Amino acid sequence: MNRSVIARVVGLILAIEAFCMLPSFVIAAVTRGADANAFGASIALCGAASFFLSRIKPKSKRFQPRDGFVAVALCWIVLGLSGALPYAFYGYSYVDAVFETVSGFTTTGATVVAAPSALPMGLQFWRALTQWMGGMGVLVMVLALLTSLGEGSVNLMKAESPGPISSKLRPKTSETAKSLYIIYIALTLAETLLLRVAGMPWFDSLTTSFTTISTGGFSVRDASIAYYGSEAVNWIIVLFMFVSAVNFGALFQIQRGQWKDALKSEELRVYTFITAGAVAFIAADLIVTLGKGVYESVSQSAFQVVTLMTTTGYATTDFDLWPFFSKAALMLVMFVGGCAGSTAGGVKVSRVVILFKGLKRELRRILHTREVRPLTLEGERVAEGTVSSVAAFFFAYVVILIAAAMVVSLDGVDVETSLSAALTTISNVGPGFALIGPTCNFAFLSALSKVVLTVTMLLGRLEIMPLLVLLFPSVWKK
Amino acid sequence: MNRSVIARVVGLILAIEAFCMLPSFVIAAVTRGADANAFGASIALCGAASFFLSRIKPKSKRFQPRDGFVAVALCWIVLGLSGALPYAFYGYSYVDAVFETVSGFTTTGATVVAAPSALPMGLQFWRALTQWMGGMGVLVMVLALLTSLGEGSVNLMKAESPGPISSKLRPKTSETAKSLYIIYIALTLAETLLLRVAGMPWFDSLTTSFTTISTGGFSVRDASIAYYGSEAVNWIIVLFMFVSAVNFGALFQIQRGQWKDALKSEELRVYTFITAGAVAFIAADLIVTLGKGVYESVSQSAFQVVTLMTTTGYATTDFDLWPFFSKAALMLVMFVGGCAGSTAGGVKVSRVVILFKGLKRELRRILHTREVRPLTLEGERVAEGTVSSVAAFFFAYVVILIAAAMVVSLDGVDVETSLSAALTTISNVGPGFALIGPTCNFAFLSALSKVVLTVTMLLGRLEIMPLLVLLFPSVWKK
Repeated sequence: MNRSVIARVVGLILAIEAFCMLPSFVIAAVTRGADANAFGASIALCGAASFFLSRIKPKSKRFQPRDGFVAVALCWIVLGLSGALPYAFYGYSYVDAVFETVSGFTTTGATVVAAPSALPMGLQFWRALTQWMGGMGVLVMVLALLTSLGEGSVNLMKAESPGPISSKLRPKTSETAKSLYIIYIALTLAETLLLRVAGMPWFDSLTTSFTTISTGGFSVRDASIAYYGSEAVNWIIVLFMFVSAVNFGALFQIQRGQWKDALKSEELRVYTFITAGAVAFIAADLIVTLGKGVYESVSQSAFQVVTLMTTTGYATTDFDLWPFFSKAALMLVMFVGGCAGSTAGGVKVSRVVILFKGLKRELRRILHTREVRPLTLEGERVAEGTVSSVAAFFFAYVVILIAAAMVVSLDGVDVETSLSAALTTISNVGPGFALIGPTCNFAFLSALSKVVLTVTMLLGRLEIMPLLVLLFPSVWKK
Repeated sequence: MNRSVIARVVGLILAIEAFCMLPSFVIAAVTRGADANAFGASIALCGAASFFLSRIKPKSKRFQPRDGFVAVALCWIVLGLSGALPYAFYGYSYVDAVFETVSGFTTTGATVVAAPSALPMGLQFWRALTQWMGGMGVLVMVLALLTSLGEGSVNLMKAESPGPISSKLRPKTSETAKSLYIIYIALTLAETLLLRVAGMPWFDSLTTSFTTISTGGFSVRDASIAYYGSEAVNWIIVLFMFVSAVNFGALFQIQRGQWKDALKSEELRVYTFITAGAVAFIAADLIVTLGKGVYESVSQSAFQVVTLMTTTGYATTDFDLWPFFSKAALMLVMFVGGCAGSTAGGVKVSRVVILFKGLKRELRRILHTREVRPLTLEGERVAEGTVSSVAAFFFAYVVILIAAAMVVSLDGVDVETSLSAALTTISNVGPGFALIGPTCNFAFLSALSKVVLTVTMLLGRLEIMPLLVLLFPSVWKK
């Protein structure tokens, strides 16, 4: 294991984090907030640690795949532990602070803060910014900034975005990393302006855009997006959530004017189809079962489906009060999640497509014993190794979901709460149902549950495998 | 498609069914029960249909795999529809009657009968006997009776017990089918005698043995096994349930005196390990959370874990009142189920073992890119086709589970009820939680839910694939 290079990467991450805390520090200082000292101390600590780590001289340039996994895991853990300092210095317990921070960086949006609007503005900004930083992948940021890591950079990216399919953002070069950031920033600015035009204050517009484009879901308002009570705001946010959960490869094509190629994407079509289907079914359920009006039903259904399918997790209404069929449908789209190569979580649409195609092929094989056709996705052949990777991922997803739900059930909470807590954290959505519904928060859970759910959020964000490989002793051998 | 041979097999099944209704008819006649006419009419109808079908002359002896799937699916559907006649003639709605019958033949044990003890004795006996017939597989019975089906028999068995691993009972020859039946009958008689000695009436002993050895779970008493209030009865049943969910291959070895080989079985060890682990965890939860005594906790935990893991589904206590962690653990063992090649349902222990080994191999592959070691089970190499079959099966299992739960949720029932209804039917367990807990029944559900859950039971019993292949149009081409 190349400890010195890993230490250097962790040091760089700490420097970025300290730098990103600066705006919050300025906001806190300007507003004379109670969090100014917290940010000052945090920046000093992170900066000092970063300086110390940058003094370590790399002994060797050799950077193996396993070093990539260790580096990424360590970076994300360090991000969570150090990013929690402002909350902790402000007064939150460290377990709560880490939960909130990891929920931020993993763009989950599950919160232990009962009233975000009561937080000082510096912390409000930091909370939103962690999601924006995490959405694109913090190490993508490193790659965008640093062109000199050589082969190491590839192994880092592999570990942070391990999907067998090019899931999550996985730029191959510093150049692509920069292009992706340009799209990311452009979307954020566009949404900010539109929200401002729709009547949102500047601060709310910017922080909401941070948490929309990253499909994070934190809000500076206690009632989330319902606070603004504006249909225009709702539809703007629906649009940007939907776009942010599209494969950035397709967005890249659109940016280059290749509209037709982008719209041909099989994953994009299935994603649109599932979204539209869920909106229709749930709207029908709301009309029939609750007797709501047609526009109201479609509008509420569209917002909730898109916010949960894209794993953002805002709320415009308390969907925990919806009929059970609608709630089950919402849980299903939370499970599926957005497109691979986007900022969204969940199993991912392309994986679900591969799983269905694999099942169909298996049935064909039962009928016609010798025939084994290769699977295709987006018109290209999918390697057999990828098919079995996806299957293993799905199994691991279900196992972790069940295990996390069982730990939460030790708190004496019902099946709906424990199951949705596990689902919402591994899929990086945010709110769940029953005791952790959209009007509730995670503060009441035991420390054990919070720690396990924190780990579950990390597992979901890093797509499981990079963290699980750390259980192999061979990773830790010199 | 060889329609004439398929018709012949279906005719044979109807003859067996009519024959198996005779004891119930005799019981009904002797007890002057209100169900005597129902059985008389049912036997006449089944017999006539069987006679009519037996007149069809086979045009060709060619019997392809797809014919096997169609034959098995048809046989099971016909069994359900015709076995329901006695209930229907007695007065149940046809949807309820089919639900109860399919629940019997699939050894599920979910019931729409609120008070089984109020049924006439003929129907009580028929209810228990359907489980005993279904446990071993009705087509295994055909095979044991009929040696002249040639290549057709193999394709029939493949379809009824399709597991890639030799899951469910899959005798290769008429000889093995007979040996398996000898073990099956011996176990049934042994349990009957032991229960009688423990103080159960003869009728209860025999019907309980029918539903234990088949891991079915129907009881002639409204309170299930709790009615007898006897620790001796409980432990005898625990023993026989546990044994019945062991791979019959291992039981076959034991019968031949090859104890050591049988106990070496990897699946048997994992099965024992999961059972013991679940018993310990749940007992600890009962002691700590509910403050129950140690013996009481272990005894109740052992009974419920074994009855749900073996997918039998008796009750000695209302486990729906247990703490949520214990309930979650029970749901987990329901999901896993018993050993392959037994009468139990669920995903099956050997499949879970293959899935975990597949995941471990995938992680190893991520670390050491080029290394692909074959998986082993029971010391033998598992074919890659089998690994992907198991993965496809697991995915289909989860999809059907979610789909069935969503249909049930349309009835306006909570997540726990709808989810456990789907789980308990696809795993062929019987009772679920909340509104369908061990003291409740399925009668209140809508006809749609009952039909969907009936199909789910069939999918679970036939291990999904043989029914799903029928969706391919190519199966139905001449």
